[in-house]
Amino acid sequence: MTEICFAAKAACRGLARLDTATKDRALGAIATELEERADEVLAANALDVGAGQAAGLSAALLDRLRLDSDRVADMAAGVRAIRALADPVGEVIAERDLANGLHLRQVLVPLGVVAVVYEARPNVTIDCTALALKSGNAIVLRGSSQAANSNDVLAAIAIEAAAGAGVPEDAIGLVSGGGHHDMADLATQDDVVDVVIPRGGDGLKAALKEVATVPVLYAASGNCHVYVDVGADLDAAEEIVVNAKTQRPGTCNSAETLLVHRDVASAFLPRVLGRLREAGVELRVDARARAASGQLAASLIDAGAADWDTEFLAMVLAVGVVDSVEEAIDHVNAHGSRHSEAIVTSSPQSAQAFQLGVDAACVYVNASTRFTDGFEFGMGAEIGNSTQKLHARGPIGMRELCTYKYLLEGTGQARP
Amino acid sequence: MTEICFAAKAACRGLARLDTATKDRALGAIATELEERADEVLAANALDVGAGQAAGLSAALLDRLRLDSDRVADMAAGVRAIRALADPVGEVIAERDLANGLHLRQVLVPLGVVAVVYEARPNVTIDCTALALKSGNAIVLRGSSQAANSNDVLAAIAIEAAAGAGVPEDAIGLVSGGGHHDMADLATQDDVVDVVIPRGGDGLKAALKEVATVPVLYAASGNCHVYVDVGADLDAAEEIVVNAKTQRPGTCNSAETLLVHRDVASAFLPRVLGRLREAGVELRVDARARAASGQLAASLIDAGAADWDTEFLAMVLAVGVVDSVEEAIDHVNAHGSRHSEAIVTSSPQSAQAFQLGVDAACVYVNASTRFTDGFEFGMGAEIGNSTQKLHARGPIGMRELCTYKYLLEGTGQARP
Repeated sequence: MTEICFAAKAACRGLARLDTATKDRALGAIATELEERADEVLAANALDVGAGQAAGLSAALLDRLRLDSDRVADMAAGVRAIRALADPVGEVIAERDLANGLHLRQVLVPLGVVAVVYEARPNVTIDCTALALKSGNAIVLRGSSQAANSNDVLAAIAIEAAAGAGVPEDAIGLVSGGGHHDMADLATQDDVVDVVIPRGGDGLKAALKEVATVPVLYAASGNCHVYVDVGADLDAAEEIVVNAKTQRPGTCNSAETLLVHRDVASAFLPRVLGRLREAGVELRVDARARAASGQLAASLIDAGAADWDTEFLAMVLAVGVVDSVEEAIDHVNAHGSRHSEAIVTSSPQSAQAFQLGVDAACVYVNASTRFTDGFEFGMGAEIGNSTQKLHARGPIGMRELCTYKYLLEGTGQARP
Repeated sequence: MTEICFAAKAACRGLARLDTATKDRALGAIATELEERADEVLAANALDVGAGQAAGLSAALLDRLRLDSDRVADMAAGVRAIRALADPVGEVIAERDLANGLHLRQVLVPLGVVAVVYEARPNVTIDCTALALKSGNAIVLRGSSQAANSNDVLAAIAIEAAAGAGVPEDAIGLVSGGGHHDMADLATQDDVVDVVIPRGGDGLKAALKEVATVPVLYAASGNCHVYVDVGADLDAAEEIVVNAKTQRPGTCNSAETLLVHRDVASAFLPRVLGRLREAGVELRVDARARAASGQLAASLIDAGAADWDTEFLAMVLAVGVVDSVEEAIDHVNAHGSRHSEAIVTSSPQSAQAFQLGVDAACVYVNASTRFTDGFEFGMGAEIGNSTQKLHARGPIGMRELCTYKYLLEGTGQARP
């Protein structure tokens, strides 16, 4: 592990200097090679899936682990999408002449060595490599032992294709870990690894927080809300709530709580809760929501105090009634995880109050929380979604893999 | 401590919503009140200085602790300078229409509660309060017990003046600490304190790193270099080197090592080392620097291996000769602390190579490293200088006390 990190560090300076054309050639080569060596990828993946089945992995985990030719094609398309984006390195984010006579430029530069710790999905190997490469960073991939065969082939393809285009081989390093031992190794590479980004469950994050001495960008959990305001378009509200809850309930940007203004509760709750129940959602309601739910009331479960703070990641929704947009904001700030929050409203005042008042990475007006995603945001892809406030908030894409440098030009100035 | 932090957190939402005019009125009131109550400030400060003398504080520490009417006037002027700067809150740093039909804005918002841990200088109380206030943040000031009387009066002035302009009183909190106990309290206020910024020596930083569970922005030490290239204007080089070393040697942006290209060593070293010696600088040289120093050679000290890695913060300079700008870059990256680095050159190629190749917050061409400073950079003031790569690099000013939020407007979009 230490060797891989040091080699990545040594590759950094050359990487930071690569011009956009070289990086784009490398990305194009990776995409082509992925397509040409798809059979090799699928054969390696079949070994992992077979071992996973023998080891009794859950169906959900096996699904995340499994590749097919469509998924390989998607990976190649993802690499090409990243290639098509602007190169952030060298972008001047501020420029001015100072009173002291110096000319100042604040310029984006790569962070250096980015380490990503992830679980079963083999496509992460390619997505993260492409984002790191285009942003001039070396990457250390710490994948799961369950995907070791798939990741080995994918990383080899990326390394070989990129090297052919002039990228240092050590710019991409892979460790297929087992247990937490090598993760601790990774997270204590001070002055070598510039940031560790864990993708995965709370267990992974807690384990990292315990040991990490290098900076960590936590791609954390999402306890997201949809608030339906008085006067909202209830047809739109229904589509948004159903989408935010059911479109992919295992994702961090899915809604876990529905809040409804008291003045629309009787009009809205019977229809939306009926549809959610039909879709198989378990509904945990407060007393006012129950009272406003008409014939459905008997089929609802009482919400417990913990439900408002829980990221279910499942077909479960907490439902509450509030007196005002202010109460909705207070509820979100008290219980949310600062990820993605939505208001459905036709009032510009309510929309503005909610966007100003809610403390979260992404605040939506009249749209589903499910859009929080690097690809949807036009960032090509993402390494994860940060719920931290420092450095990066929301999707972690190429710009978030950069830091900046002040470049100052003088004509011999000394400080008086 | 916990009470002060919770009160600051509760004040945050109101603070984040304050308009620029209100914040500017508060800052104006603080400046005026400081001037009008200068006698009160000086009387309190005299108590601290008297106690410090009785306790045998060093002359340097007493100087940092001592206020006079000029220093109070400087504080008021500093507050007005911050008032004159643009309000970062609400600034749209990116805006675009997404393919999914949503309109995205990435907007600067305050971090929330900023805690600053600092040592003797009482002016920090006012500087940091003004920066936090204008950027919409609540601040928790953890000052030194040695400055407790001064800080109490200064914080009271700030709180009263700001409250008169409509700022919540709990937005500014002061704890005059002693020992590390209350610092640990501060640094473990998860979900209450959004960032802790330590200003002070390495001991303070090490103590914080040990206990902190909230994010910390380390304003760390500076092992800064000046490299004099072949073909450089040697008059300019001499002024820059003397300034970078001697103008205020106790600061983190002072130079600790001089590197000289071999082809100008014999022309440059005798004159610059002579002048530095006259100024009282102890010179620790490598063999090639000694050989190029002519008559001065006998008065020079051999540099030890540790000298290249030492932030002397004193009238001591390590001096080495290198073969090329590339060797200079390698030396800086191997030994520097990523703070401020300078090249003196007349070659655009060397300048560019140095600025690209050196990994540091601030890279100067033909100017002294001493300019790394929030005020010099046009940021009004600074809370410190970050040598981290994540979030903020270089001077920590108002924008660095902000995070961002994505605001997304739709017309009922659900994710397909």
